[in-house]
Amino acid sequence: MSILIQDVSILTMQRLESGEICPVYRGDIVIEGNLIKNIGYADRNVSYDTVINGNHLLAMPGLVNTHGHSAMTLFRGYGDDMELMDWLQNRIWPLEEKLVAADVAVGSRLAILEMIKSGTTAFADMYIFMSEVALAVEEAGIRASLCRGLTEGPLSIFKTKEAVNFAVDFQGAANGRITTMLGPHATYTCSPKYLQKIMEKADKHNLGLHIHLAETKAEVEDIKNRYGKSPVEYLADIGFFSGRPILAAHGVYISEEEMPLLTEKKVSIAHNPRSNMKLASGMAPVCSLQKAGINVSLGTDSACSNNNLDMFQELRASTFLAKVRDLDPLALPAAKTLEMATVCGAKALGIEDAGILAAGMKADLILINTDKPHFYPQHDLISHLVYAASGEDVDMVIVDGQILMEKRQLLTIDEEKVMYQADEAATKLVGK
Amino acid sequence: MSILIQDVSILTMQRLESGEICPVYRGDIVIEGNLIKNIGYADRNVSYDTVINGNHLLAMPGLVNTHGHSAMTLFRGYGDDMELMDWLQNRIWPLEEKLVAADVAVGSRLAILEMIKSGTTAFADMYIFMSEVALAVEEAGIRASLCRGLTEGPLSIFKTKEAVNFAVDFQGAANGRITTMLGPHATYTCSPKYLQKIMEKADKHNLGLHIHLAETKAEVEDIKNRYGKSPVEYLADIGFFSGRPILAAHGVYISEEEMPLLTEKKVSIAHNPRSNMKLASGMAPVCSLQKAGINVSLGTDSACSNNNLDMFQELRASTFLAKVRDLDPLALPAAKTLEMATVCGAKALGIEDAGILAAGMKADLILINTDKPHFYPQHDLISHLVYAASGEDVDMVIVDGQILMEKRQLLTIDEEKVMYQADEAATKLVGK
Repeated sequence: MSILIQDVSILTMQRLESGEICPVYRGDIVIEGNLIKNIGYADRNVSYDTVINGNHLLAMPGLVNTHGHSAMTLFRGYGDDMELMDWLQNRIWPLEEKLVAADVAVGSRLAILEMIKSGTTAFADMYIFMSEVALAVEEAGIRASLCRGLTEGPLSIFKTKEAVNFAVDFQGAANGRITTMLGPHATYTCSPKYLQKIMEKADKHNLGLHIHLAETKAEVEDIKNRYGKSPVEYLADIGFFSGRPILAAHGVYISEEEMPLLTEKKVSIAHNPRSNMKLASGMAPVCSLQKAGINVSLGTDSACSNNNLDMFQELRASTFLAKVRDLDPLALPAAKTLEMATVCGAKALGIEDAGILAAGMKADLILINTDKPHFYPQHDLISHLVYAASGEDVDMVIVDGQILMEKRQLLTIDEEKVMYQADEAATKLVGK
Repeated sequence: MSILIQDVSILTMQRLESGEICPVYRGDIVIEGNLIKNIGYADRNVSYDTVINGNHLLAMPGLVNTHGHSAMTLFRGYGDDMELMDWLQNRIWPLEEKLVAADVAVGSRLAILEMIKSGTTAFADMYIFMSEVALAVEEAGIRASLCRGLTEGPLSIFKTKEAVNFAVDFQGAANGRITTMLGPHATYTCSPKYLQKIMEKADKHNLGLHIHLAETKAEVEDIKNRYGKSPVEYLADIGFFSGRPILAAHGVYISEEEMPLLTEKKVSIAHNPRSNMKLASGMAPVCSLQKAGINVSLGTDSACSNNNLDMFQELRASTFLAKVRDLDPLALPAAKTLEMATVCGAKALGIEDAGILAAGMKADLILINTDKPHFYPQHDLISHLVYAASGEDVDMVIVDGQILMEKRQLLTIDEEKVMYQADEAATKLVGK
């Protein structure tokens, strides 16, 4: 299967020797199998299975959403503007008690549909009934890093076993589009002993760990009360960061002193600015984290605390929030923000050969329709992608060389069916 | 001209006696001339000029954008991530020196196009060559409150005369869709004497005033150094707030002590959260302003400091920013946020009989396509409008009883032509 995208604006997201992001230029892109074969000028005498006219389109690497709980789309809009514990205890947890595998299947499909429509080509997911999520990923053609979320409780022996089995069984599934991790939920929901056990399992099976870290002030205080240390110090002391890939979501409350350790241990942060704003968690020190050399990627968190999965809106929120947090209009400039959602995201999920457009890289790319009022005048398309675009501007999505969406029409998902089934499942859960 | 919107979801934005916003319900909407004739059930035996099937659509009042500089769309993406003075002195001001009436005509058309496409039915504008803006408003069919921006300088006598003539000549133009104000730019660009003169002119011609107020820390310090008072105290002392409608943009640095005065004087604030974030101005105390009883509306500011004019994204930014500012997830709940962009906006611009949907009100309304993944499940459409929607979900726009957009196709504007002309004008200005 070969694809030629002809005469298209190209944002490779490669950095030049000067350190600048390579400007947008016009050229052709050739995809063969699941890889980018060539960028620049394509031989017109060769025949291609599919030829796409790049007029008014901009090609860029697909966006990587590094933190979420897909099936929670089912709870979108079910309890906003509430205190966290009130919301969890009286809305979310009672519904999660009732969740069955079929609900997760439907909720994940809705999330994947929404992510593809807004230009996400890979995502990280921590939830339950993960083989249902894997099936949805396989069918939809998207890429994902999946883990079963683990909190300690009466059934945690079984859950841990299930999580490990899932991670081992599905590692590299769907032609390598699926990778797996273990997902200890957080420092305040797992004891040191339980975390140790999960770390052992991770090392035995060569798995990374995905955890919520330093999300709220309350969490920091709780862990300080329990162990006399901050969450980062505490995890460092039990060896959590050593010897395995770590994806830590949020990191709102990480001090300057703690940063060098996270840099040294190559911990990736998933920054979730809109979730942190909506839940009033706080403003993560993104610029300081980056300055310290930490790989900061971008996530939407679930559709309950956001409430959409549009990574373009997340991009904009991250730079806006960084600027107002540091009272610095130069904080997190456009290109650096885009890097968080592409290069840094691919690195955070351990996706090799992705995050930039270049010959030999994975063919995970999106085409943006720039023929819309908010893209004019076309002084600077990189600026427009960050400061003006939305997921609705995504025209085409290609993952692993397969076209998943063309002219906003999904090719692998029955959109109407997924929306209908999600509504039905959610209505049943809420008991209306 | 009569329109029937049949069996549509309706969000009237009316408050019930309980204080709650009336929930979304299904019914018909009948428009006759420029007014809403009936909401509820329409007589099927009557014939209507236009019948719209409301399936998968939600009708709500059009959004009101209470602060902007339309023609600055021409500078969108021309200088982001810069220090304010560097940006103004080296990018914006040199271009503005070169601006001619035709540029403003084109830039305003681009802004109006973008605003209609994202559900704005009325906007406030402060800029130059305002009769060009008025012409664009007249043609496009949108509603606007226009003023010529006034800064003091060698030519201010002529500018003031021009501003007053414009305001007098265009008051009530376009069948009342255009209203006018005077626009003293800010406390730091107009002396007390000049402000006094503008106040006199305003009173003579019964005009309101639109001003930038307490936008940045630097402004507050500047005014304190000059007059020994904060901008609000200073304006209060020269009688600025007394006896005429005031629309004050930004209000980031308004203290609790200053709020009762603004309440008493019925000053409206135009809150511009995304501009305040992007320019790193700060976080306005929106909840405190509201608690004090001040009418807080919502604006996008110009496409230079935002960089799009999508009021749905502005809605979301305002509630997210309020929540993280006050570290309170209950801050600025969904319905109250929507009110800022509808009821409070209409009030701020002095548009009578608008901002809610009810019999006898102006027919300024928009239809939202709710058949999209991010609107599912449909637990709570009010939540989705604030926390998940974007301007791209707007399917139809009606202003003053006239359909301006149908199935996202503009009926009064040649979209391709406007985008092309804006690009051409901007390229010429930038001198590339």
